[in-house]
Amino acid sequence: MHVVRDLKKIQDIGFASRLDRKKLALVPTMGFFHQGHLSLMRWAKENADRVVVSVFVNPAQFGPGEDLDQYPRDHERDMELAKSLGIDYFFMPEADDLYPQGFDSWVELPGFSKKLCGISRPIHFKGVTTIVCKLLNLTMPHTAVFGLKDRQQFLIIQKMVNDLNMPVIIEGRPTIREHDGLAMSSRNAYLNPAQRESAPIIYNGLLMIRHEVLSGRTNCRQLEDQLKNYYLENITGSDIDYVSIVNSANLESSSRAGHGDFMAVSVRLGRARLIDNIDLYQAMEDCAE
Amino acid sequence: MHVVRDLKKIQDIGFASRLDRKKLALVPTMGFFHQGHLSLMRWAKENADRVVVSVFVNPAQFGPGEDLDQYPRDHERDMELAKSLGIDYFFMPEADDLYPQGFDSWVELPGFSKKLCGISRPIHFKGVTTIVCKLLNLTMPHTAVFGLKDRQQFLIIQKMVNDLNMPVIIEGRPTIREHDGLAMSSRNAYLNPAQRESAPIIYNGLLMIRHEVLSGRTNCRQLEDQLKNYYLENITGSDIDYVSIVNSANLESSSRAGHGDFMAVSVRLGRARLIDNIDLYQAMEDCAE
Repeated sequence: MHVVRDLKKIQDIGFASRLDRKKLALVPTMGFFHQGHLSLMRWAKENADRVVVSVFVNPAQFGPGEDLDQYPRDHERDMELAKSLGIDYFFMPEADDLYPQGFDSWVELPGFSKKLCGISRPIHFKGVTTIVCKLLNLTMPHTAVFGLKDRQQFLIIQKMVNDLNMPVIIEGRPTIREHDGLAMSSRNAYLNPAQRESAPIIYNGLLMIRHEVLSGRTNCRQLEDQLKNYYLENITGSDIDYVSIVNSANLESSSRAGHGDFMAVSVRLGRARLIDNIDLYQAMEDCAE
Repeated sequence: MHVVRDLKKIQDIGFASRLDRKKLALVPTMGFFHQGHLSLMRWAKENADRVVVSVFVNPAQFGPGEDLDQYPRDHERDMELAKSLGIDYFFMPEADDLYPQGFDSWVELPGFSKKLCGISRPIHFKGVTTIVCKLLNLTMPHTAVFGLKDRQQFLIIQKMVNDLNMPVIIEGRPTIREHDGLAMSSRNAYLNPAQRESAPIIYNGLLMIRHEVLSGRTNCRQLEDQLKNYYLENITGSDIDYVSIVNSANLESSSRAGHGDFMAVSVRLGRARLIDNIDLYQAMEDCAE
């Protein structure tokens, strides 16, 4: 595995793959790998000839007072894990190289970015789309792989790539969960034992709502209220950021749950802001992981 | 010459050039060719193996009340001219393909875009950077060629490409002028005979200011006032949009004219809004075209 820090060098690697007619996959991450990251890397290894994993905690997607400095990091362990999976290039750029003095070019999706997580994190997705655009330009991959836990992020990046005619396929892979259903996230490291114990209630609630929809109850406002009440009753000390049923085509609020709709939630548990989502109308079996 | 309207097809042509190891140059235009456009195409022919000329009057860079509908068009003549120069691909996309229903991804450089022309055209450069980003992604050229009459546009695009790590070289080519010094522009077609007669005063004034600077007078506010007064006295019915000495590194106003500074002007003459600029401190001979 080659560890690359230089922007020019990674771009040369991307071009070389194109010229060699080898399929290159990019797995962009902020590091501190869990099984979710590893599942993206395994998919990339199986579906491309060469794999670049990038690790960069992107300052531009953290707002003032957010957890940029506290975000967990372990480059040594990440490198070992990537190497064990046969990753070809471990790309670890420097913030000063990606955002040099005077940097001021931004990719923005004003509509999609204002919704769901964008309400409490107004600059977040502008940082995400800008860094992903840069990483795609730097690696020129055939495919870039993202986890569907960050469903809004995946949809925004897919829209950016389509709108801006970027020559890459965006692949979304299923959320990987702990045995009790909690979606894997680097931010789970922030949970104390009591918080960790109640965190699976987030996903249990989503399963409950999908069961309601499959049973024919499709009034979205009522379903959202039902889930809010469930969280308030069952998660001690929780602070609900949002609970929303939206359509994946436009992230607009749905009134009657139907095909293409998913339910997305964000709940604060102590220091951790945890997000999760579930497709409505999907066969229950598809959900088991 | 191949006339291409399909986005997928032009992207295939771009990739094929990369795989064939042929240098591709893109000349993005809004059509209605004059000698300025043709000089860009000639440069591209001499410096690349294959040349794509795009013709697209980009709605996103015109504000409300601007001249989108009146902007002069002559596709047949443009095609003939391009063909006569040996252009390989004439790319003429449709607005509905480039901006499909729901399009909402934008590339913005808030700092650079607010200055000079951005003061009276607040959405203009957001439209420019977005369409250029799209055209670069669609053609994947080694080089994209722009005229330096639109100096701010050139600097913004160069900055976008650097900031977003886009793998392309942005080439700026000198302004081509009529025999009396008027910078060639498709919008000169808007001038009536009396306006056309006074239009060369715009460039005469710029030459005068450069002469002042070379003679040791470098106080930028005084030079700007001198040029404004010159225009007001000599161009009947003129309406000065701006007259500014700025640095090409950051478009910031200079106080003392020095290396890297240029003077940029925008003057409204009837329906036409004409822009021009001149490098200060450049040897006078370099200016003759």
